[in-house]
This record gives sequence, C-alpha cells and structure tokens, in this order.
Amino acid sequence: MIKLYIGNKNYSSWSMRPWVLLQQAGIAFEEIMVRFDAFTPDSQFKAALKPICPTGKVPVLVDGDLVVWDTLAIVEYLAEYAAQHAPDTPLWPADKAARAHARSICAEMHSGFSHLRTHCPMNIEAQLPHVGALIWRDQPGVRSDVARLVSMWQTLLQESTGPMLFGDFCAADAYYAPVCTRLLTYGLPVPDDVAAYVNRVCALPGVKAWMDAAGLENDFRDFEEPYRLQSTR
Amino acid sequence: MIKLYIGNKNYSSWSMRPWVLLQQAGIAFEEIMVRFDAFTPDSQFKAALKPICPTGKVPVLVDGDLVVWDTLAIVEYLAEYAAQHAPDTPLWPADKAARAHARSICAEMHSGFSHLRTHCPMNIEAQLPHVGALIWRDQPGVRSDVARLVSMWQTLLQESTGPMLFGDFCAADAYYAPVCTRLLTYGLPVPDDVAAYVNRVCALPGVKAWMDAAGLENDFRDFEEPYRLQSTR
Ligand SMILES: N[C@@H](CCC(=O)N[C@@H](CS)C(=O)NCC(=O)O)C(=O)O
Ligand SMILES: N[C@@H](CCC(=O)N[C@@H](CS)C(=O)NCC(=O)O)C(=O)O
Repeated sequence: MIKLYIGNKNYSSWSMRPWVLLQQAGIAFEEIMVRFDAFTPDSQFKAALKPICPTGKVPVLVDGDLVVWDTLAIVEYLAEYAAQHAPDTPLWPADKAARAHARSICAEMHSGFSHLRTHCPMNIEAQLPHVGALIWRDQPGVRSDVARLVSMWQTLLQESTGPMLFGDFCAADAYYAPVCTRLLTYGLPVPDDVAAYVNRVCALPGVKAWMDAAGLENDFRDFEEPYRLQSTR
Repeated sequence: MIKLYIGNKNYSSWSMRPWVLLQQAGIAFEEIMVRFDAFTPDSQFKAALKPICPTGKVPVLVDGDLVVWDTLAIVEYLAEYAAQHAPDTPLWPADKAARAHARSICAEMHSGFSHLRTHCPMNIEAQLPHVGALIWRDQPGVRSDVARLVSMWQTLLQESTGPMLFGDFCAADAYYAPVCTRLLTYGLPVPDDVAAYVNRVCALPGVKAWMDAAGLENDFRDFEEPYRLQSTR
C-alpha cells in the first residue's frame, strides 16, 4: 500500500495537499506522521526523514521501492496512479485546456504566494482575525497575493460547470485547500463568491477530515506560532 | 504553431528551460522575446505580458487559444504534446520509477535552491569566478545548495545508462541547465564527474544555441547585475 509521510496536521500545508487528494480520490494509503520537533540537522524530524528522502522534508510518498518527494511530483504520480487504479476520479481535468490551466495554477502556487505563506503560516486550529487585520493593513504583498487569488478563482468559478475550480474536485482544489484555511484563520477579506468557494472546499470530506484532526492535535511548536504564546490559545 | 514568450537569454533562467526542451525535442515553435526593462507595473515588460498571462512573468506558452504559464506546467504540457507529435523524444523517462524521480527533482528545483538562485543569478555572458569565490566562502546556504546538487547528480549519474541524468536527455536535464551555467559563471567548485556532466549539458545543441545567443545579446540590466558595472564588463 502507498505510504504518505506527513508533518503535523495543524501546520504542514504541503503535507495537506496530497493527503486530501488521496482521500478525495478514495485511494487507500497508510499515513505516517513525523511530528515537527525542529528542522535542525539533529532533530528527530530530520533523523526520521533523511534515510527516506534526500530533501528531508514532508510530504514524501513511498510506493514499494519507489520514493517520490515534493508535492507537485507526488501529485503527478498520484494522477498517473489514479488513472490506473481509480479511473472514475481523474485527478486532473480530462479536458486538455482545463488540465493545462489547472497545472499552471498549481505550479504558480508551488513557487509563488510567498507573502501569504510567510506572513500567514498555516495554523488550522487558531483563530487570528486580529492578527490578520494588522497583516492586511501593513503588508501590501499579502494584499496583492490575495488579489491574485481572488481574480484567479473568480475567473475559474464563473466558467466552472460545478462547485470546484474546474467543475468537479481536482488536484487544483487540493493544491489551494491550505490557502482556504489560511483565509479563514486570519479572517482575510474576500468577496462573497470566493468565501463561498472557501467554504465548499472546507466541507469536502477529505479537507474536513484533515482540519478536524488538526483541531484535535494539540501539539504546538513555537517556531510555527509567530503570533501566539502556547498558554494564551 | 506553439509560441513561447521568453525574457532575455542572458538572464532569464526560467525561460531557458522550456526553450531548451522544445529545441532538444525538435518541436517547431515561434520564440517571442519580451525584453526586461523593469518588472514594475508600468514597465514595457508587464505591459506586453499582462494581456497574455495573469502572472505577468515569463515563460508563457501559447498554443492557439490555450495559454500555459509557469515552467513546470509548461513542461508537463510539452510532455503531453511531445507524446502526440514527437513520440521518439519522450520528455519524461519512459520508466515509471525514473519518471517519478525526474519529476521529484524538477519540483524540488521549482521551489528550492533559493540560496543559489539569490546569490548567483543567471548571467551566462559573465565570468565571475572571483565573485563566486567570495560567495563560496561567505554563504553556507550556497554551499549546501551545491552539496545537494552534487549528491543528487552523482547518485543519478552512477546509475544512468547514458550521458544525462536519466540515460538520454529528458526534462530534468533542461530543468537543471540554468544551474549548470551558474556553476560555470561563478566558478563554484564541484567534483570532476559533476563538472563533466555540466560540460555535457552545455554541449547539448539546444543549450549551446541558447548560451551562444545569450553571449551575443549585449542587453544589460543593472537590476540583473549585482556584481558588475556595465562599463567594466
Ligand atoms: N517544495 C516542498 C516543500 C516541502 C516543505 O517545505 N515541507 C515542510 C513542512 S510543510 C518541511 O518539511 N520543512 C522542513 C524543513 O524545511 O527542513 C514540497 O512541495 O514538498
Ligand atoms: N515560477 C515561475 C517563475 C517565473 C519568473 O519568475 N520569471 C521571471 C524571469 S526569469 C519574471 O518574469 N520576472 C518578472 C517579475 O518577477 O515580475 C515559472 O517557473 O515560470
């Protein structure tokens, strides 16, 4: 069975993407959580991951002898896997133009949105709208990242034949799921149609299962909590 | 015919990847160069790109009505395109494990190697070994990025059945081609087997054609030249 190495559900936005994808596609897999203690060379995290994967980061997918790392490579692997094992749930849109578009926005996420990622790290269990309001006031880069999201999603939703970005759920929705949780955690202002999409993503069974588990995790790390003292949560 | 929008050949490392891939695969395409003047909202660069692509960055691939942006999405698009139009030159390795591995290192490049990218921006025409020596001495992040490259390439080359990372040329070699030019420009120290791979990449017709054109371009931008005054080159 496929194994997926992930980090803490509350914090690890990269891990969330392939996990959600596997759940939504109904592909059986074993989850192996490697808890964040630190990312230093002598951490338990690195000690657990380094023998498995050269980057020493999560997520990592292991399928028998085969090791796949880095989210976008894992997604492409799963898309090929699903085509064989679960052909009813294609992970990329079947239409060529939609598929190219979906891949464009995933690759854009993979290397972009750095302001949002830096200032609004994923923290599913937290509610930080007061922090979000200050970030919104003071960080033009976050405002422009969100403006790009809004325009991207609105364009797609207007043409979409279903509730998700490309009709039915696909890899692009999984890729943006951690962004949806950030918008909620930090209470960043978005138009109603975008807020409705965020809610639909969070209601997907795979996303909800991850978020529920994150809420119950109770495993906090100061280096993932720039805005909270553990005791004040 | 496919159109590929690119930036200056001397500087635009992202543009180089799909261009090299198209050349090596023998796929006919029209090149449209959008010269870097600045990346500000009022620049000619943005004025030219914004109507075409929402990110306003190069590379962008246009195939009829279809617009694909972000390098990794373009590479996946071309891989599907090549499978139809030039099946003799597959862009990903045919073997499933090799393909997953190739995608892993491309995704790793797409979001990683930030120290090397920041401190050693691509500048094909320049020879900056003295700058490189200082960077090597002072930037542990660059040393660890290069250490990762060396270990990645050595592992692959030892198992490779051909001159490239996965036997014959594939998308992963194109993805690392701009890294090869950086190692040369900055004279960063690498073991002999790695240096030999770098030379083989630079001798590929598609890579050589890009590098030759970069050398003749004579179109310099201060914001791409942290280490040179134009007059001293
Ligand atoms: N580009 C990588 C990023 C993975 C990543 O940065 N993962 C974080 C957790 S969300 C990690 O493992 N960090 C450990 C470290 O930076 O050393 C991917 O998409 O998989
Ligand atoms: N992740 C993008 C990066 C593209 C990119 O940053 N391109 C540079 C030129 S090499 C650019 O167009 N920069 C303009 C800007 O940053 O505004 C990709 O892979 O295509």
